Amino acid sequence: MLRDNPVPVVSFHFGAPSREVVDALHRVGTFVLVTATTPDEARAVERAGADAVVAQGVEAGGHQGTHRDVPETDGSGLGLLSLVAQIREAVSIPVIAAGGIMRGGQIAAVLAAGASAAQLGTAFLATPESGANALHKQALTNPLFVRTELTRAFSGRPARGLVNRFLREHGPYAPAAYPELHHLTSPLRKAAAKAGDAQGMALWAGQGHRMARDLPAGSWWRCWRVNSPRPGRRWRAEGFDDSSGLRGRALRRGQGWPLRPRRPGRAARRLREAAAAR
Amino acid sequence: MLRDNPVPVVSFHFGAPSREVVDALHRVGTFVLVTATTPDEARAVERAGADAVVAQGVEAGGHQGTHRDVPETDGSGLGLLSLVAQIREAVSIPVIAAGGIMRGGQIAAVLAAGASAAQLGTAFLATPESGANALHKQALTNPLFVRTELTRAFSGRPARGLVNRFLREHGPYAPAAYPELHHLTSPLRKAAAKAGDAQGMALWAGQGHRMARDLPAGSWWRCWRVNSPRPGRRWRAEGFDDSSGLRGRALRRGQGWPLRPRRPGRAARRLREAAAAR
Repeated sequence: MLRDNPVPVVSFHFGAPSREVVDALHRVGTFVLVTATTPDEARAVERAGADAVVAQGVEAGGHQGTHRDVPETDGSGLGLLSLVAQIREAVSIPVIAAGGIMRGGQIAAVLAAGASAAQLGTAFLATPESGANALHKQALTNPLFVRTELTRAFSGRPARGLVNRFLREHGPYAPAAYPELHHLTSPLRKAAAKAGDAQGMALWAGQGHRMARDLPAGSWWRCWRVNSPRPGRRWRAEGFDDSSGLRGRALRRGQGWPLRPRRPGRAARRLREAAAAR
Repeated sequence: MLRDNPVPVVSFHFGAPSREVVDALHRVGTFVLVTATTPDEARAVERAGADAVVAQGVEAGGHQGTHRDVPETDGSGLGLLSLVAQIREAVSIPVIAAGGIMRGGQIAAVLAAGASAAQLGTAFLATPESGANALHKQALTNPLFVRTELTRAFSGRPARGLVNRFLREHGPYAPAAYPELHHLTSPLRKAAAKAGDAQGMALWAGQGHRMARDLPAGSWWRCWRVNSPRPGRRWRAEGFDDSSGLRGRALRRGQGWPLRPRRPGRAARRLREAAAAR
C-alpha cells in the first residue's frame, strides 16, 4: 500500500523493519524513521538502513517502542537526556528526541544534547486540532490525575498513561500479551468513554502532561519561543538543528521535508479548517 | 556541629529541613540545597527557605531524594528534562539539575531547559580521585552490567544501582524499611566486597554509567567541552549559567562560591595530591 501510494514519512514502532522493507520505501522517496529506547536498539535501527532514529525516553506517553517486550527489564527505561547522549555516541544517523517535551526550552535542551530534532506528542493532545476524546483532553491537566505510570493494563505492552482506577486495579497483574489484551479491553474502554467515565479509559499521557494547554496548535507553538528560558539564543525558529543533515537527507529522499510544516500558522489554519469541515 | 564549624554548602536529601534549621545555617553563612523529585517537593523546598533546589531525575544513581518513601508511587519517577521544566515553573529559586549527566552536551541541555547549574555524580565515580571501591569503579563500564534499576534491596529505600545478583534476588520483595534494611545488609555487602564479589555489592550508578571514564577528574572535565555536540556555543566555560543569580546568592551567604572550583585544573591537582598522600 505504501509503495503504491507513497507518503513523505513512515515511522516504525515496536522494532526495526528488514533492510528490504526500508529499501522499498526509499525507492518511492519515503523518509524512514524507527523508534529506539536503548543504544542497542538504535544500532539495530541504523543497520536496517533507516534515515533517522527516534530516541524515545521513558517520559513518553503511550506505548514504549521497545523492540521486544521483556518484563524482566521493566523499570530500566532510560530518561530522555541520558538516552539521547548514549544513542548519539552509538550511531551516526540523525537522532530525533521524544518523550515529555512540552516547552521551547526543552526543545533547545535536546538539540544541545545532540538531537537533530524534537518530536512532541502529549504537547498537542489537548489542542482543538487533536482527535483525542474530550474526557482524555480534560484529564491531562485535571489535578485529580497527579501522576503517570507505564502499564500493561490496557494493551499487554508497556504504555504510559495517567494513573486511574483501571490502571491501578489491573496494572499489577497484567500479562505481556499484546495485542490480545488490547482487543480484550477495547470494548470496556469504549463503554467507559461512552459513559463519561475517565477512570475506565486509557488516558495516554507523557510525564509533562500538566504543562499541556488547550490552545490551537499554531498559537501554542508560537508560545514556546516566548517561554523558552533563553528565547532565540539556542532554539532556532525552525525547531530543529540541521548540523547532522536531517533535513538534507529528507529532501534527497524526494517526498520533501515533512517533519515540520514550513509555515506553522498556515498549517494550523488548514488543520482547523479540516477539523471544522468534519 | 555545622553551626560551630560552618561549611560553605549543606545539601539535604530525603526531605526539607524546618525553616529554623535553614535559618540557623544561613546565619553562619552556609548555602542550603535540598533535593526534590517532583514539583510539589520543590515547592516545599522553597517554603523551607533553601537557596536552591536540586532537581533529581529518575536517571540518578544511588538514593532518590523523595521526601517520603511511598511504594504506591514506584514507577512514577520523572525524567530529568521533564522534572527541570516542571520545577522551573513551580518555584522561583534556582534549580540545579542532577541525574544521568555525563557529558558537556547534557550540561548545556539542562541549562537550556532552565536549570542554573548541573550536578554530576556517576560521572566522577570512576575517576582516580573517587573513593569508590575498585570493583564498583570497574563494574560501571563492564559490559556484563547492562542496566540499572531502582531497588529497595540494599537499604529499604529506592536507590539506583547496576542490576546484579543481589538486586535481582532481593529487589522484588524488599520492604520500605530504611534505614533498618541498610544496617541489615551492610555486613553482607562488606563481606562481598572483601571477597571480590561485585554481584553481592551495592553498585550505585546513574543511567549514564557506561559513559564513565577512569580519567583524572581535571582532564575528564576538560573533555566535556570538546565532546559537547556544539562546543562553546551554549555551555559556558564556568559550567553554569548565572542568569537566575545562583552564584550571587551563594556569594552573599558569606562562605564563598563553592559549587565549582574556580580552577578545575588546580583543584584536580590538589585532589590527586591528597589522594596520593593517603
